[in-house]
Amino acid sequence: MLIYGDLNSGNCLKVKWVCDALSLPYQWVAVDTLKGETRTPEFLALNPAGQVPVVVLGDGRALAQSNAIIRYLARGSDLIPDDPYAAAKMDEWLFWEQYSHEPYIAVCRYQMVYLGRPASELDPDRVKRGHAALTLMERHLAGSRYLVGECCTLADVALLAYTRLAPEGGFALRDYPAVVRWISDVERALGLAPIGGVA
Amino acid sequence: MLIYGDLNSGNCLKVKWVCDALSLPYQWVAVDTLKGETRTPEFLALNPAGQVPVVVLGDGRALAQSNAIIRYLARGSDLIPDDPYAAAKMDEWLFWEQYSHEPYIAVCRYQMVYLGRPASELDPDRVKRGHAALTLMERHLAGSRYLVGECCTLADVALLAYTRLAPEGGFALRDYPAVVRWISDVERALGLAPIGGVA
Repeated sequence: MLIYGDLNSGNCLKVKWVCDALSLPYQWVAVDTLKGETRTPEFLALNPAGQVPVVVLGDGRALAQSNAIIRYLARGSDLIPDDPYAAAKMDEWLFWEQYSHEPYIAVCRYQMVYLGRPASELDPDRVKRGHAALTLMERHLAGSRYLVGECCTLADVALLAYTRLAPEGGFALRDYPAVVRWISDVERALGLAPIGGVA
Repeated sequence: MLIYGDLNSGNCLKVKWVCDALSLPYQWVAVDTLKGETRTPEFLALNPAGQVPVVVLGDGRALAQSNAIIRYLARGSDLIPDDPYAAAKMDEWLFWEQYSHEPYIAVCRYQMVYLGRPASELDPDRVKRGHAALTLMERHLAGSRYLVGECCTLADVALLAYTRLAPEGGFALRDYPAVVRWISDVERALGLAPIGGVA
């Protein structure tokens, strides 16, 4: 399997983490989005949306959308609950992540890290919505070890990706102690080196 | 089962359509988002994100996020492909819908229909991205009856919701003939009355 991705992208890291956690073999194909490498005819044939990550399976078939990819790769594993309702709650977090977390926290980080903008030039509404996402997570994680009960699932994988990088987007995590505790727990569950820093 | 929703919301209609197509019994609880009914303590206890739709199952457990809900309700039905790769492509469309279609087409429609803004006051970048989403669908549907092959799946349910309402958000569909053909096919597959109008 080939993974087309960018190691600075949380969406791409989700796929890497799942493959590493489940010992799925893959070859990483580095893609530089800033150089237009997701806009070539060859890449658009794999994913017409022009986004990484994309995986190409052994038989040549492609799959895009980070959360769809990890849901496919992790099928049958402990990262997806057997119980249908628990799996649905996991899906609830996966869709919430793409609609109510990524567009604020990841986009602020993109503007600062990739485009070099200072935090002072971020859209205040985007920052406000990012904090609303972190506040929702904080309240939930104050009463729950992982996002869906007592086991690490794809919900944790997906939300970890940009939450641990939130400080790079101007979102200090010091006001979110349950989130900070959860980041450590998920990093440990996935065998990741701690990224450190909550400033 | 209770469905908390707004019949003018495409996200809520997805849930209704799946229940109707699969003959799942439910009671509809009308929620007026403009009157703050998704911000009451009672509603936020069901969905801390403060959004409709939410379903409450017979045992009192709640589930939010339209695409997570329909994925749960339709499990084991023909609306989800048995083949894991086809199911993953369905998921690819579900996540794409929430990230690259709904924030543009549904939000433009919300601003026009709910807030009464004229099309001339829509954010041009949002309109451009909405047309990019329709163009991606058009190219795909020119070569495929449904979004995932020859059978109607949840991908079609989810994308139908706001695509058929796109003209209400200022997106004329006359330049998207394959999309217009597909809307009719999905409406027929789901037993919906045609909404008509592509202006």
